[in-house]
Amino acid sequence: MRNPAENAQLALLLEVSGTPKPGNVDRHRDYDDLRFEHFMAGAVGSLSGLRMAADGARVGRAFERAVAGMSDQSGGNTQFGALLMLTPLVRAAATARLSHTGTSDVVEATTVADACDFYRAFDHVDVAVDDLPEDVDALDVRRGSDAVSALREREVTLHDVMTQSADRDGVAAEWTSGFERSFEAAEWLLDADGPIYKRASRVFLRLLADEEDTFILTRNGAAAAAEATERAQSVLDGEEAAEALAEEFVERDINPGTTADLTAAALFVALERGLVV
Amino acid sequence: MRNPAENAQLALLLEVSGTPKPGNVDRHRDYDDLRFEHFMAGAVGSLSGLRMAADGARVGRAFERAVAGMSDQSGGNTQFGALLMLTPLVRAAATARLSHTGTSDVVEATTVADACDFYRAFDHVDVAVDDLPEDVDALDVRRGSDAVSALREREVTLHDVMTQSADRDGVAAEWTSGFERSFEAAEWLLDADGPIYKRASRVFLRLLADEEDTFILTRNGAAAAAEATERAQSVLDGEEAAEALAEEFVERDINPGTTADLTAAALFVALERGLVV
Repeated sequence: MRNPAENAQLALLLEVSGTPKPGNVDRHRDYDDLRFEHFMAGAVGSLSGLRMAADGARVGRAFERAVAGMSDQSGGNTQFGALLMLTPLVRAAATARLSHTGTSDVVEATTVADACDFYRAFDHVDVAVDDLPEDVDALDVRRGSDAVSALREREVTLHDVMTQSADRDGVAAEWTSGFERSFEAAEWLLDADGPIYKRASRVFLRLLADEEDTFILTRNGAAAAAEATERAQSVLDGEEAAEALAEEFVERDINPGTTADLTAAALFVALERGLVV
Repeated sequence: MRNPAENAQLALLLEVSGTPKPGNVDRHRDYDDLRFEHFMAGAVGSLSGLRMAADGARVGRAFERAVAGMSDQSGGNTQFGALLMLTPLVRAAATARLSHTGTSDVVEATTVADACDFYRAFDHVDVAVDDLPEDVDALDVRRGSDAVSALREREVTLHDVMTQSADRDGVAAEWTSGFERSFEAAEWLLDADGPIYKRASRVFLRLLADEEDTFILTRNGAAAAAEATERAQSVLDGEEAAEALAEEFVERDINPGTTADLTAAALFVALERGLVV
């Protein structure tokens, strides 16, 4: 029997193995500098932080440790968003409360110290930069650990941080909604048949067709985000081939990263609820 | 910095991700009932046993635990042979003696209790069967844990077991040769350039071209083993396409499993010696 931390590690591995997942690194596609092997190493490195979450460490601290371990590979940010979802889910599962209310209790209990850890995690993934313009907000994540004093002064908890980002970040939206979409997509995985990599691909497409991907929105703009959602629906409707779309999105660097994070969270919940691998 | 147990887990993941590896499950190919996802789950489950090896448990006991964890998936035997190599290699690495003599010391120190654990490991992978003919040897591995009393009576150590199988089993041959081919192939990995999945594919082909695969020999016979070695050489010589050979061998169920085990061992040694992922 896998424990929750091991199921979270397996969810990371099954997520990146799912194919086709248009725009993502998957079992069949790499970006030049972000490859499948980096996700393998990221999953290996993440486990010790995920175990801390299961064992009762602060959620922020466990997340920061998971990100530090994940970053011990040369591809850069592989699973930051997925770990931000998996950490509270693992905690909830380890306390037998893997439910909307159980996860809400976990995220609402986060403190200012958790928020500080969350900002420290950005130091590991090259989001934090030293030469920000002075007018950038004191709590901009690009400040990384330099934001810690402002967080303490303003008494901002990690749950506060997520609440403030929920309208523009799909991961934060899960934190503040009891992981609604993750739990729903887990049921899709459990209700489906066949190899997991095909189920993961299908669930990824359904999630993307349902809601615009906030990672695309931030990186590529509103038109690309709308297009990705429409074309995922076209694939589901049988009007477009998933493999061709996957090639095109990698070519155009349209990467639905938040949808991949949601897929990882859904795989974790499904594994905890009996998905057989 | 990954520790030896984590590098062993990563080696399992990088091995199965290497492609093309003619006849093996790889990043691009599944058998119907033995799929990439089973290897992912096998790698997740193996870690706790590998950690025991690093922490000083008996090699046989750590191996049996790794196999028990590996078997917590529905695909059957995914990484039994690879774990049989990785367990003593992890122990050697954890004691800073990852060398021919260091690994020889580890395997020569194994006891009768380790041999009993080794036979118990077969219970987890459906090799052990209950209705063997009476004339089958008391130490046939198909007896699984039923062989324990005979092992104790005859005072057979795990090293003895491996010595007796070395001429017909490529994994046992590594145990009794100071892991000669594993260390050599690790240098090939370190000397190469480019993505790891391509290096792993190349090293797999070189190992297969160098020596007949004993898993093929046992399952498919001498002609198939000879053919696999010849055709791996043809690929290296540019006379045959690796992808086409991979399709054909999967179709014909010619699976060079021992060569995959050697590749995993080589990846582990290379990771310990600085292979950057």
